Amino acid sequence: MLKRDYETQICSIARALEVVGERWSLLILRSVFLGVHRFDDLLEELGITRSVLTARLQRLVDEGLLKRVPYQERPPRYEYRATGKGRELWPVILHLLRWGDAHYPDPSGPPRLIEHTGCGGRPDDHLICDRCGEALTYFNITSRPGPALTAAGKTAR
Amino acid sequence: MLKRDYETQICSIARALEVVGERWSLLILRSVFLGVHRFDDLLEELGITRSVLTARLQRLVDEGLLKRVPYQERPPRYEYRATGKGRELWPVILHLLRWGDAHYPDPSGPPRLIEHTGCGGRPDDHLICDRCGEALTYFNITSRPGPALTAAGKTAR
Repeated sequence: MLKRDYETQICSIARALEVVGERWSLLILRSVFLGVHRFDDLLEELGITRSVLTARLQRLVDEGLLKRVPYQERPPRYEYRATGKGRELWPVILHLLRWGDAHYPDPSGPPRLIEHTGCGGRPDDHLICDRCGEALTYFNITSRPGPALTAAGKTAR
Repeated sequence: MLKRDYETQICSIARALEVVGERWSLLILRSVFLGVHRFDDLLEELGITRSVLTARLQRLVDEGLLKRVPYQERPPRYEYRATGKGRELWPVILHLLRWGDAHYPDPSGPPRLIEHTGCGGRPDDHLICDRCGEALTYFNITSRPGPALTAAGKTAR
């Protein structure tokens, strides 16, 4: 049963925000998109409490945005992977990133550089490659640490 | 001074969410986009308390996403209009709407129908018109109440 944060609203934006509008939810999804799949790695990257991370992951699994995939049998261990439904929020996250880059720039430069894999073009206002004109998706882009992350010594992903 | 909700994060998505990630902020922006510009009308449409609406509007004005425009001199009265910076979040809102429509459909049909003005085409995955191929923006689309809103007797905007 979907929790109704916005009970008075007959609105698909409100419905979407009921699922991903809680603090940290979109950043967890971002991290999973970037390849952080395991609980302890998410805990370290996000710097949140175990209980908040547990609750948010459970919600994202319950709503079908993430799925648990076993990676070890004894003891059983799971990692978190984005589903198709979760990946469909990729444009929301990319547009937030572009907006943050534009209006709250880091003095060192962008934290992350998003490029069309192989081509090197960047996403335009419609997430179309500004170099070759191909439509960019979750599957044909590469995200690498930009100047702000490199300056902070964070270059792992 | 920007409030840091996500202090540990060197991330433009986190920066963006520090500005618009609070409960109701994106829905206020949505309502202003739809043409609800005055405090009392926003209060009625959103069904929130005066204090929450006041705080959220102040934040959106402080951060330059909305501006106050006088519409009456005695007594002085203001309405809220989106700035260019605010309008640049239109793609975020549209993608949330499409995702909500797709995954949490209202039994009566979509609450809102977004169409390319004049053409009648719909936004595709890249917010390009699926009929004529023109890039859709804040300025060339029309939003009208869809079946779910009409069924609820809400047809004003």
